[in-house]
Amino acid sequence: MNEQAGIKPYVIGLDLGGTNSVFGIVDARGDIKATTAIKTGSYDNVEDYVNASVDALQVIIDQVGGIDKIKAMGIGAPNGNYYNGTIEFAPNLAWAHDGIVPLAKLFSDALGVPVALTNDANAAALGEMVYGVARGMKNFIVITLGTGVGSGIVVNGQLLYGHDGFAGELGHVTMVRGAEGRICGCGRTGCLETYCSATGVARTAREMLAKTSRPSLLRDIKPEDITSLDVSIAAGKGDELAKEIYEFTGKMLGEACADFAAFSSPEAFIFFGGMVKAGDLIMEPIKRAYNEHVMPIFKGKAQFLVSGLDGASAAVLGASAIGWEIQ
Amino acid sequence: MNEQAGIKPYVIGLDLGGTNSVFGIVDARGDIKATTAIKTGSYDNVEDYVNASVDALQVIIDQVGGIDKIKAMGIGAPNGNYYNGTIEFAPNLAWAHDGIVPLAKLFSDALGVPVALTNDANAAALGEMVYGVARGMKNFIVITLGTGVGSGIVVNGQLLYGHDGFAGELGHVTMVRGAEGRICGCGRTGCLETYCSATGVARTAREMLAKTSRPSLLRDIKPEDITSLDVSIAAGKGDELAKEIYEFTGKMLGEACADFAAFSSPEAFIFFGGMVKAGDLIMEPIKRAYNEHVMPIFKGKAQFLVSGLDGASAAVLGASAIGWEIQ
Repeated sequence: MNEQAGIKPYVIGLDLGGTNSVFGIVDARGDIKATTAIKTGSYDNVEDYVNASVDALQVIIDQVGGIDKIKAMGIGAPNGNYYNGTIEFAPNLAWAHDGIVPLAKLFSDALGVPVALTNDANAAALGEMVYGVARGMKNFIVITLGTGVGSGIVVNGQLLYGHDGFAGELGHVTMVRGAEGRICGCGRTGCLETYCSATGVARTAREMLAKTSRPSLLRDIKPEDITSLDVSIAAGKGDELAKEIYEFTGKMLGEACADFAAFSSPEAFIFFGGMVKAGDLIMEPIKRAYNEHVMPIFKGKAQFLVSGLDGASAAVLGASAIGWEIQ
Repeated sequence: MNEQAGIKPYVIGLDLGGTNSVFGIVDARGDIKATTAIKTGSYDNVEDYVNASVDALQVIIDQVGGIDKIKAMGIGAPNGNYYNGTIEFAPNLAWAHDGIVPLAKLFSDALGVPVALTNDANAAALGEMVYGVARGMKNFIVITLGTGVGSGIVVNGQLLYGHDGFAGELGHVTMVRGAEGRICGCGRTGCLETYCSATGVARTAREMLAKTSRPSLLRDIKPEDITSLDVSIAAGKGDELAKEIYEFTGKMLGEACADFAAFSSPEAFIFFGGMVKAGDLIMEPIKRAYNEHVMPIFKGKAQFLVSGLDGASAAVLGASAIGWEIQ
């Protein structure tokens, strides 16, 4: 980070979501100096999207002293490929759902600064390493619990991209083999994501409610309307069934982490995303199942942490961290 | 590798097994210039073991022109910790089964050259990268199929050691969850190793023979005497039950590799060890199950290879590769 040099003290971070694209100009300490946003879905082709982005960015770039103050830009985006700077077949992006879009190059050409891009979970992992609870760590795994389950794996101080740029899809390890496994959006069955994402938790709630006639606050909600937030609220009020749903979810996450330890033996597992707000309700069963299932040699070695980044700005900070990584 | 410099053209490789310790002096091309061996189990304490090793080594060191020709020494050993140069609680080594032995330092002090140490599967992976089928690859996984199932994971051209030096224990990911899982030597149940090691294959044979009354050449052998080699020979003769045992084993390996792809998205999976001699009998079901179970994004990207190193010398070559890595 070259803040000391005083020349280019900022990077642009872009948190590119299916609905909103949020831009921030960030300094080396992780202070967001200016932000702006556009609607991702309002553009049919990527040229229009980039033009609108640059128009919005120009205002905040001027606020911080002009493009000469900007070292680089980092983008966290669904289906982002770091090696190629592309977004590839992203189902939720109108201008990238059926092809390969060279988004890093388009922004770099338009702004005249280097641009790097990766997927949102990798951006979250870099964000934790640069600004968050993983500062100083060289081996850790960030698991994002949101609509899906994503992951960013850091090994020897570097993000693990693998041969093709798509490593770190831990939401899609198989947890339930055979015909019993839940159907996953990836076209397979039994993936971790189908149980431990927000939608997976809601599904567990519906299954548990249907299977028994036990009383629960969740019975006041139409089954198809139940969300993981409802489960969290009910559990917070002491609802036993809701607590069991978190037990089930955390147990599966803990068992998955035990397998991940056999792979990369991280110093910490860091959980990120909306579901983490459930706190000990989810973290305690994770830790318990991990300690029950991990190889003895790894027992007690890994920390289980919750992201230290402010939820609203975490994704932009993570994206900006990609920018700092550019040499 | 500094062969061109002409000064120190060799490294010593030590393949340290429970029974034998095999030493080789190896050049940068992977040619073994001289070898010697001692019985690992003949020594009660590590000082005697190192003294006997150095005595044996002295003869072959002199053969290649003296210790000045030796750049370094690499050791592949069970429970080897690369970070500390130690062997830790290795159940099959009399002088290291209940403690932490600083073997790299002991050899370095005795020989006056730098010494590095890692576990045998990591050594195999480095051997493939330096001398074998993984030359030029930066992301691959070596899976050793022997008495146990081991692994060496290479990421960004580096061995994955993790926070504590013990990463890459893929023989101990859980493949069968719950009460049905086979008991593993690591104290847990359902580990990949309990199904896909040589002993796991023999166990599958006994289970399949007991479960049905189908004819099989394996019925000519006392169940408790069946080995994976017997299964391989029977399958080679067209025995249907034996072929099914390999189908079952390969299917589980292929499903496990599909999960490993979600982790590090390697360019290749490389199989190593006695069981690989079964050839297509084991490799075909692995590939088939992998392609059925891997995430669509990874499909068709990874190669499935068999170690190209000569079996007798592979372990020594792998160990010597650790020596070349020392800066």
